[in-house]
Amino acid sequence: MRDSDPSVDRPQAPPLDEVGLDNFPPYLMNRIMGRYNASMREELAALGLSTPKMRALAVLAVVDGIQIGKLSVYAVVEQSTLSRALDALCAEGHIRREPDPQDSRATRIFLTEQGRAAFDALWPTMAESYAQMFRGIPEDERAAFTATLQKILANVRKHDF
Amino acid sequence: MRDSDPSVDRPQAPPLDEVGLDNFPPYLMNRIMGRYNASMREELAALGLSTPKMRALAVLAVVDGIQIGKLSVYAVVEQSTLSRALDALCAEGHIRREPDPQDSRATRIFLTEQGRAAFDALWPTMAESYAQMFRGIPEDERAAFTATLQKILANVRKHDF
Repeated sequence: MRDSDPSVDRPQAPPLDEVGLDNFPPYLMNRIMGRYNASMREELAALGLSTPKMRALAVLAVVDGIQIGKLSVYAVVEQSTLSRALDALCAEGHIRREPDPQDSRATRIFLTEQGRAAFDALWPTMAESYAQMFRGIPEDERAAFTATLQKILANVRKHDF
Repeated sequence: MRDSDPSVDRPQAPPLDEVGLDNFPPYLMNRIMGRYNASMREELAALGLSTPKMRALAVLAVVDGIQIGKLSVYAVVEQSTLSRALDALCAEGHIRREPDPQDSRATRIFLTEQGRAAFDALWPTMAESYAQMFRGIPEDERAAFTATLQKILANVRKHDF
């Protein structure tokens, strides 16, 4: 071993074929969310909703009156795609835009009563998919899992929220 | 409460605005994987690789010689998108297709030596992103988190692998 070997300070991860796919969390998370999002997509289509619309409604149901940039981060939808979804949600009467009193060039997005009703109609589908994910997993394990997810999000996010 | 009230048997989840986004694991996992996949995409572009190509190489590095259907599930890439990525990887000499000895209509996909070298060059980028996700999270917490992910995958997957 050379004294200047950088692997002394930063041990290399064992290669993926030693770790195995089933022990590589990013693989497991992509598999899980691929499946979850695909099954949500099918159920939402029956309600006439796309994934970007569903996510916008869900985020606004929790943090109403935010700007599109923040909504785009929370909803994990590219801003251009989200912008089209918001146009449709606005035309359908689910959301309204209001000028931001703190920033004259910006608007804030609010759920209308009809939009909240649409989310309330959608929530049982989301809750059911969530329940299916965690079937047989005890409450303390769910809580520990969620706490680890919060740490991971803090590690990877680029924004302060 | 009516005797036939279905909520007696299946308690409703509390609404999302009570739970909060930060306590809703599907939200956290979409945020995390959205960020992880976006940063991988940027780093892969520098190596001339797309996400479908990267995932195909990574899966084949672990489970070589599988059919496209299984590769599509493991890689979480739609079969039509994956098929185009495989055509490109084949033209670049990274993979080869061979007739399946057990199924005359099917082919199996193998990594070439060059393909394995491409994956080996790519792995440090994946390992680094993975290390960043779990920065400051102790080994026993990682192990518990991974075990929960394995249970969730077993709950949501449609295939027996």
